[in-house]
Amino acid sequence: MDFLKSLNVAAINKGVGTGTVWIDSHGETIESFSPVDGKKIGSVTATDKNSYERVIQQAVAAFPIWRLMPAPKRGEIVRQIGDALRANKEPLGKLVSYEMGKSLQEGYGEVQEMIDICDFAVGLSRQLHGFTMHSERPGHRMYEQYHPLGIVGIISAFNFPVAVWSWNTMLAWICGNVCIWKPSEKTPLCGIACQNIISEVFAKNNVPEGVCCLVSGGRELGEWMAADKRIALVSATGSTRMGKAVGATVGARLGRALLELGGNNAIIISKDADLDIAVLGAVFGAVGTAGQRCTSTRRLIIHDDIYDSIKNKLAAAYQQLRIGDPLDQNNHVGPLIDKDAVKLYLKAIEKCREEGGC
Amino acid sequence: MDFLKSLNVAAINKGVGTGTVWIDSHGETIESFSPVDGKKIGSVTATDKNSYERVIQQAVAAFPIWRLMPAPKRGEIVRQIGDALRANKEPLGKLVSYEMGKSLQEGYGEVQEMIDICDFAVGLSRQLHGFTMHSERPGHRMYEQYHPLGIVGIISAFNFPVAVWSWNTMLAWICGNVCIWKPSEKTPLCGIACQNIISEVFAKNNVPEGVCCLVSGGRELGEWMAADKRIALVSATGSTRMGKAVGATVGARLGRALLELGGNNAIIISKDADLDIAVLGAVFGAVGTAGQRCTSTRRLIIHDDIYDSIKNKLAAAYQQLRIGDPLDQNNHVGPLIDKDAVKLYLKAIEKCREEGGC
Amino acid sequence: MDFLKSLNVAAINKGVGTGTVWIDSHGETIESFSPVDGKKIGSVTATDKNSYERVIQQAVAAFPIWRLMPAPKRGEIVRQIGDALRANKEPLGKLVSYEMGKSLQEGYGEVQEMIDICDFAVGLSRQLHGFTMHSERPGHRMYEQYHPLGIVGIISAFNFPVAVWSWNTMLAWICGNVCIWKPSEKTPLCGIACQNIISEVFAKNNVPEGVCCLVSGGRELGEWMAADKRIALVSATGSTRMGKAVGATVGARLGRALLELGGNNAIIISKDADLDIAVLGAVFGAVGTAGQRCTSTRRLIIHDDIYDSIKNKLAAAYQQLRIGDPLDQNNHVGPLIDKDAVKLYLKAIEKCREEGGC
Amino acid sequence: MDFLKSLNVAAINKGVGTGTVWIDSHGETIESFSPVDGKKIGSVTATDKNSYERVIQQAVAAFPIWRLMPAPKRGEIVRQIGDALRANKEPLGKLVSYEMGKSLQEGYGEVQEMIDICDFAVGLSRQLHGFTMHSERPGHRMYEQYHPLGIVGIISAFNFPVAVWSWNTMLAWICGNVCIWKPSEKTPLCGIACQNIISEVFAKNNVPEGVCCLVSGGRELGEWMAADKRIALVSATGSTRMGKAVGATVGARLGRALLELGGNNAIIISKDADLDIAVLGAVFGAVGTAGQRCTSTRRLIIHDDIYDSIKNKLAAAYQQLRIGDPLDQNNHVGPLIDKDAVKLYLKAIEKCREEGGC
Repeated sequence: MDFLKSLNVAAINKGVGTGTVWIDSHGETIESFSPVDGKKIGSVTATDKNSYERVIQQAVAAFPIWRLMPAPKRGEIVRQIGDALRANKEPLGKLVSYEMGKSLQEGYGEVQEMIDICDFAVGLSRQLHGFTMHSERPGHRMYEQYHPLGIVGIISAFNFPVAVWSWNTMLAWICGNVCIWKPSEKTPLCGIACQNIISEVFAKNNVPEGVCCLVSGGRELGEWMAADKRIALVSATGSTRMGKAVGATVGARLGRALLELGGNNAIIISKDADLDIAVLGAVFGAVGTAGQRCTSTRRLIIHDDIYDSIKNKLAAAYQQLRIGDPLDQNNHVGPLIDKDAVKLYLKAIEKCREEGGC
Repeated sequence: MDFLKSLNVAAINKGVGTGTVWIDSHGETIESFSPVDGKKIGSVTATDKNSYERVIQQAVAAFPIWRLMPAPKRGEIVRQIGDALRANKEPLGKLVSYEMGKSLQEGYGEVQEMIDICDFAVGLSRQLHGFTMHSERPGHRMYEQYHPLGIVGIISAFNFPVAVWSWNTMLAWICGNVCIWKPSEKTPLCGIACQNIISEVFAKNNVPEGVCCLVSGGRELGEWMAADKRIALVSATGSTRMGKAVGATVGARLGRALLELGGNNAIIISKDADLDIAVLGAVFGAVGTAGQRCTSTRRLIIHDDIYDSIKNKLAAAYQQLRIGDPLDQNNHVGPLIDKDAVKLYLKAIEKCREEGGC
Repeated sequence: MDFLKSLNVAAINKGVGTGTVWIDSHGETIESFSPVDGKKIGSVTATDKNSYERVIQQAVAAFPIWRLMPAPKRGEIVRQIGDALRANKEPLGKLVSYEMGKSLQEGYGEVQEMIDICDFAVGLSRQLHGFTMHSERPGHRMYEQYHPLGIVGIISAFNFPVAVWSWNTMLAWICGNVCIWKPSEKTPLCGIACQNIISEVFAKNNVPEGVCCLVSGGRELGEWMAADKRIALVSATGSTRMGKAVGATVGARLGRALLELGGNNAIIISKDADLDIAVLGAVFGAVGTAGQRCTSTRRLIIHDDIYDSIKNKLAAAYQQLRIGDPLDQNNHVGPLIDKDAVKLYLKAIEKCREEGGC
Repeated sequence: MDFLKSLNVAAINKGVGTGTVWIDSHGETIESFSPVDGKKIGSVTATDKNSYERVIQQAVAAFPIWRLMPAPKRGEIVRQIGDALRANKEPLGKLVSYEMGKSLQEGYGEVQEMIDICDFAVGLSRQLHGFTMHSERPGHRMYEQYHPLGIVGIISAFNFPVAVWSWNTMLAWICGNVCIWKPSEKTPLCGIACQNIISEVFAKNNVPEGVCCLVSGGRELGEWMAADKRIALVSATGSTRMGKAVGATVGARLGRALLELGGNNAIIISKDADLDIAVLGAVFGAVGTAGQRCTSTRRLIIHDDIYDSIKNKLAAAYQQLRIGDPLDQNNHVGPLIDKDAVKLYLKAIEKCREEGGC
C-alpha cells in the first residue's frame, strides 16, 4: 500500500484538523475497512464537542484574514493545489478506489475532476463580478459588491469521497470563505489524504490556520454542523432523508443549504434510437460506481417494438462485465460499499422477482 | 370613499379567488378597520380548507397552460397590467393610505413601484436566457433551458400591502409560474382591489383561471402554504420569527423559500458628513411609513464632536413633523397600523427612559 | 389616402428636423412615387450643407442634457413612443406598404417590430449594467460605468423603411445617445411620418431639440455622415459595396461602424426533411418583401433523391402566389421597389436561362 | 548573456515560424541593438512575400483542426504555457529589459502579466457561453453558438514587447482562433524567445503547425496583414496614425480591427488630495517605462493653492530618480528605445522652454 505512504495516511490518524495543524480529540475511533478485500486500512479519531468547538473558533478567526486576501491571490493558492493534485493523482486515485471500491479509472477520474475545478476556480478568482447600475435618480449610481458568507460546511458522501468536497471548497475559497469538511464516515482516510495535500500548499503560502478544516464523524456531527449558526452555508450531499433534515434545521436558523440528494434517472429509448449507443449508455449509467451514484440509471423506458431487442442486448452486455478487484484494471465493476448495501441490493432483486421481474 | 367604488371593493367581499372567479368559503370574516379614523372599511371572507384546496387545484391545472404560453406573450399581459395600474393609481394609492395608514404620497409611491416592476418584467420576458456551453468532449454541446417552478406562494405584510406582492408576482408570471397571494390580514381589501384590477386584464386576454389566485386569512393559512408541497416556492415578507418558521417548514420538504424579514438599519454619521443631508436622511428613514419598514432607520452612530449638533437638529426636525390624517397631504406621518403597535411603541419609549435615554 | 393625413404627411414636406422643429433647407426635392401604382405620394426637401450643420450642432447641444437624464426616465419616454406606435399602427403600416411596396401584413409587422423593440428597450433602461471587480491589490476595487457614445447616425435602406431605424434608435436612446436618421431616399415619407410620431411624444416630455434628428437625402449625405467625426457611431444598412465604403471611412477616423449588409441565404433540404414545411419555408423566405431582404432565400441545396419532388412542389406553390396591389390583402406579393430593380430581376432571369436554368 | 542562451536566442535567427517550424525567408536582416549599452544583441531575418504566404497558408490549414479541439483542451495547453512562462520568467524578463530598456522589475512584471492571462484564459476556456432564448413563437427555442473568427493577426509595439501579444493570443487561442504575430521591429528577439517557449509546449501536445505563427518585419509587413482578407481580425497596438491606417484598410474589407493606440493621460490634483500619494502616482505614472506607455502621465492639472507645493515635491522626487542600466535594480529609469526617441524628447523639452515652461 505505497499510496498510503505517499499520502501520509498512517495506521492511526487524528481526524480533526484546521489546515496545517491536527487537533487532539477524545471522540470514538472510526475504522476504515476496504470493501475490496475487507482489510482494515487505518483508523481516524472522530471529532468530539471540544475539538469541534476548537475548529469552529479557528475558522471564525481565520475568516477576516482570508477574506481580505485579494481574490486572485486566493486563486493562486488554488492553482498550486491543482498542481499538488496533479502530483498526487496516482496515489489519491488508488486510495479512492481502495477505500470506496470504485474502479481505478473512476478513482483517477475523480482526482481529475478535482484538478479541473481548481483550473476553473483560478479563472473565476478574477471574475467575482457584481453589477453597477444607474438608477432613476439624477446623478445617482449603485454598485454591487459580493461579500463572502463566512464558514462553509461541507458534508460529503462515500460515493464521491473527494471530488464533491473539492467542487464546494475551491469555489468557496476563491470567494473568500473558509471551509469545514465532514467526509463520509465510510471513507475517512480520503479526508485525511486531502487534508495532507492541502496542508503542504497552505504552509508554503502562509495561509492562516482555519481556512481548511477537517472534522471526522458520523450523523451526529452532521447535525451539529446543520444547527450551528456560525456555519453560514451547509452544503450536504447524501440521501433525500438527510437532505430534508438539513433543510429544516438550516432553514429554521435562516442559514443557507446547498443540497445534492438522490435521483431516479430514466433513459427513454425510442424506436428510432441508435440501439448500440443506447445500450452502452444504459449499462455504463447503471453499473458505474457499482450503481451507487445519484445519477445512476435506475429505469429504462423502452418502446414496445424494440423491447426484446434491447433486453437481449442488455443481458449480453451484462454477461461481459467483469466484477472484481477494482484496482485491477481488467475489471469493470468493484464491490458495493459495505454489507448493508449488499443486503439492500439482494432485497431489491428479491422484490423484483416477487413482482414478476427478472 | 369613491376610491372603494372605483376599485370594486364592496362592504362585504369574498376573499378567495382564482383570477376571474371568486369562490365561496365558510371561513371567518376578516374585518378591515382603517387606522386613520378607526372606521370599518369593509370585510372579507377568509379561506377555509375547502376553498384553499379548490384554489390549489385550479393553480395546478392552470400551470401547464400558462407555462407553454411564450414568455413575450406573458410579458404583453404584464404590460397591460402596468397600464391598468396607471389607470388605477389614484384610487389604489388612496386605499393603501386609508387601509394601512401611510401617507398618500407613499401610497401613490407604492403603486408607482408596481407600475415600474411591470415595465421591467416586460423587458425581462424577452431575456429568459440560459447559457450554451461546449464541453471537453469533441463535438459535444450543452445548453440550459430554464423551466418555471410551478406555483409560487406569496405571503405579504401590512406595511407594503401591494408593492411586494407585485414584485414577486410580475417576475414569477413572466417566467411561467402561477401565483397564490395571501395578503396581510390587516390589509385584506388591498388584496381584493388588486385582484379586481388583474381580473379585468386577464379576462380580456383569456388567461386561464388559476394563474392569479388570492387567499385571505391569517397565520394558519400561511402555515398551510408553507407546508404545501404543491407550492414550489414560498416568498414571505414579515417578522424574523415568521421567517424562521417558514424556513424550517419549507426546508423540511425541500421547497424553496424567499424571505424578506426584519432589519436593524443604522446610519453612521462621521465628523465631516454633510449634516443637513444626514439629518434629513435620518428623519426620513425613521418616520417614513411611521417607522414600520424593514429598512427604517433604527439607530444612529454619531461622532462625538457632532453629537450635540445632530441631536439638536433632530429634535428641531421632529418638531416640524405634522402627524395626522395621511390622506391630507399637509401631514407627514400617519398612524401606526393598530393598537398593539401603539402599545409596543409606548413600551419601547418607556424602556428607553428607564435606560436613561430620552 | 387617409393614412397620410393621420400621419401628418403633406404633399410637400421639409425633410430636415431636430425633433420638434423642422428646418429650412435649399436641398433638391426628393419625390416619392409609390411602386404600387406609380403615383406620386409626396415630396421632401433634401438636406443641404447648412441644414446638415444645423442638425449636427443641435444634436451636439442636446447630448449633454439627454445623457444626464436618468436611463429609466429615458425608458419612460420610449414606453410612450411604443404606445404612440400602437395608436398609429394602421396608418404607418399602410404607408410602409404603399411607399415601399411590401404586403400590408408585412407593413403592419414592421410597425409591430417597432413596438416590440420599445417594450424591450424600456426593460433594458433599468439594466445598463457594468461590472464591479476586485483586483489583486489589497483593498482595491474597480467598477465599470458605461457612457453613451454621443451622436449615433443611422443610415437605413428602403426594404425596411421604419423597423431598422427603430431598433437602432430606441436602444441608442435609452443608453443616452442622440440620433440622426437618414432614411432611404426611396422611402422618404416613412421618415417624415416617424419623425411626426416621435415629435408629439417628445413635446409632451420636454425632450430637448436634437435628440431625434432626421436628415433626408441620398448617397452624398451618407458620405457626409460617415466622414463626420462628430458622429461617434454610424449604423448603416444596405449593400455590401456601401458597407465597405462606410467601413473604410469610419475606420480611418477611428469611429465605430455597425453594418448590416447583404446576404446569400441557402436552405439545405435533406432526404428526410418534412417537405411541406421545407417548401413553405423556402417560398416564404424567397418571396417575402418581394425577395428584397438581406435574409431572402437565394439558394436551395437539395438532396438528389427529392430534387424533382421539391421542384414540382415549388413550381406549384409559385403558381398559387397572387401578385398585385400589396394593400389588397388577397395578394401575397407586391411590386419591386422601382424600375431599376425590375431590370436587374429580368436580367438575372435571362442569365439563368442562358446558363441552362429555368 | 546567459538569458539569451536559456531562451535559445542565437546571434542570427530565422524570423518566420509557424509554431514548431522555422521557415526560410529572403527578407532583409533586422538587427537588434540594446538601448542599454548600444551593443548588437542578435539579428532576425525579415519576412518576405513567399514566407508570408507560406505562413498564412499554414494558419489557414491549422484552423479547422484547432477550432474542433474542445475549448478546455485548448485551455489545458494554455495552462502548460503559463507553466513554461513561470519557468522562463527570469531570462525572458531580462531579455525584455535588455532589448527594450525598461527596468528589470518591469521586465519581470511583463512576464507575470503573461502568466496571469494564461491562468485567466484557462478558466475562460470552460465559459465560452452563448445564450439560449425562448421566442414569442410557441414551442420555439433559439440558442447562440460562438464560432472562432479564423486567423487573428497581432501587431505589437516595442514598449510592451511580449505582454500585449500574450493577452491577444491566449484569449484568441482558447476561443479556437489561430494567431500570427508581428512583433515590433525594434524588439524582434523578444518574438523569437516567445516563439521558442510556445514551440516546446506545442510539440509536447501535438498542436498542428500554424496555430502560433511569427512574422518579423516592419511597417510594410503590417500593411500586408491589414489588407489580407484571410486575417479575420487585426489587433494592432501602436501610434494613433498607424491605428487610423489599419482602421481604414480593415474597414474597407469588412474585417475586424482591435486597436490600442496613444493616450494623453492627466492626473487632476484637487486641494484636499493626499499630496504624497498624488506625487508618487504622478511620478510613477510619468517615468515608468521611461514615459513610453500609452498610459503614461502626460499632464497634471493642479489646484492653484497647492501648485507650488506639488511642484516642489515633484522636483524633489525627480532628483531622487536614478537613471541608468535598467538591469541594475538600483536604477529606477532606463534608456529611451532609440536615438530618434531621444531627439523627440529633447525637442519637446526645447519647445517647453520656448513656451515658458521649465
